[in-house]
Amino acid sequence: MAYDGTNFAGFQRQPGQRTVEQVFSKAVNKMAKDPAEPVVVFGAGRTDAGVHAFGQTVHFDLPYEINAEGVRRGLNSLLPVDTIVKTVAIVPQSFHARYDTVGKRYWYRAYQNEFVDPFKRNYTGHFKFHADIERIQQALPDLVGKHDFTTFVASGSQAHDHVREIFSAEAWALPNEDEIQFEFCGSGFLYNQVRIMVAVLMEIGQGRRAVDCIPQLLAAKNREQARGTAPASGLYMKKVYYEQSELQADLNNH
Amino acid sequence: MAYDGTNFAGFQRQPGQRTVEQVFSKAVNKMAKDPAEPVVVFGAGRTDAGVHAFGQTVHFDLPYEINAEGVRRGLNSLLPVDTIVKTVAIVPQSFHARYDTVGKRYWYRAYQNEFVDPFKRNYTGHFKFHADIERIQQALPDLVGKHDFTTFVASGSQAHDHVREIFSAEAWALPNEDEIQFEFCGSGFLYNQVRIMVAVLMEIGQGRRAVDCIPQLLAAKNREQARGTAPASGLYMKKVYYEQSELQADLNNH
Repeated sequence: MAYDGTNFAGFQRQPGQRTVEQVFSKAVNKMAKDPAEPVVVFGAGRTDAGVHAFGQTVHFDLPYEINAEGVRRGLNSLLPVDTIVKTVAIVPQSFHARYDTVGKRYWYRAYQNEFVDPFKRNYTGHFKFHADIERIQQALPDLVGKHDFTTFVASGSQAHDHVREIFSAEAWALPNEDEIQFEFCGSGFLYNQVRIMVAVLMEIGQGRRAVDCIPQLLAAKNREQARGTAPASGLYMKKVYYEQSELQADLNNH
Repeated sequence: MAYDGTNFAGFQRQPGQRTVEQVFSKAVNKMAKDPAEPVVVFGAGRTDAGVHAFGQTVHFDLPYEINAEGVRRGLNSLLPVDTIVKTVAIVPQSFHARYDTVGKRYWYRAYQNEFVDPFKRNYTGHFKFHADIERIQQALPDLVGKHDFTTFVASGSQAHDHVREIFSAEAWALPNEDEIQFEFCGSGFLYNQVRIMVAVLMEIGQGRRAVDCIPQLLAAKNREQARGTAPASGLYMKKVYYEQSELQADLNNH
């Protein structure tokens, strides 16, 4: 599914808040004619308030059979306009949207200009100072591989193990748009990890950190060394992988 | 100036409503240190609630001299994030943003898909049924030229004379985006004229009207013959012209 995260307090259900899980769960249960035992929905990952998704994956068990196209159309008729179900597949009973992932891909759009662009304000992170794309590209390979990302995890994280593997890390500039875009593909990402990595990379681009600072930051295993967190509005959950073959094919194409 | 019209009740000041004129006027007066006689702002055209602008033009008289760059930066520091001043010029005392126009250019984005796209919902008009771009392109030349557009004006219009000249009318498809885009350049447009023209053109594309229906619609001079109005969210005031030379140059480039 895709959603514009602007008007959501994130994915995860929270009392009194409009969240993706809540509106999605409501639509699924309405489609299922509100069964006595409510249908529970499971997402591949929790996105924060303001974070967008092109490829969030959600699974649930319906009390009776509906074909995939019927589910897609039924849900899209019931969901609010800032969410959409793109594809639906019937999966084996054992499938789990969260625990069966073999990789995830995130996209980040950084807008660099003194003033916010009205049309990008909800869809990019805003950076006042210009960052040099070549400095960023030089630093990126230091993030690739299996590392302890303790320096790059927000304090709210519930993960005990901070070791994650990044398969690919890319950045490119769209000079006519005053944008730098990032794409990260990895085994999984810690709470706020992508946004903290982008904040550090933008500081490298702006010359506020050395191009070769990342190995030291990783080695420090200390969140205070990274400090910043790039704005949620620039982050997109682009794709969740469940098959090694699909993950490898995408990595080979990039 | 540019603005994202989503959260505005249009351009024109209205009691109790958030309008572009109101927030802009507030910023101008704050920059001018709230003079005893408030600075009045004049826009080139009034856009409706939800309509966007890339090139709205506004003029005002400041009680003292500020250089153009100082005005641009000062206003952008004071304006909300869904508006921005792109360029500022000092003009002769006689200049009037509304009465000195020699042409205007509007852009329209029509999204065609059964369901709304979360990321386009505020930035396109949504059309459930597919329209054929070739049928639209065949019909477009019938709108070009000097016509009485009474059939294409909304009932709230205060204009007495409904004769306007359209200099150019174009449409093209973005198949990968499920979009059809329109651009109209003319001497000026009546209330809702562009949105009514788009609604008729989309109906032509969908096969619900004949390709050659426009001459009859114009001749009828009857709003009831056109009926529909395309959604405000797809409309952008792209450019306002004050010089014949600039208008001609743009028309020659298209």
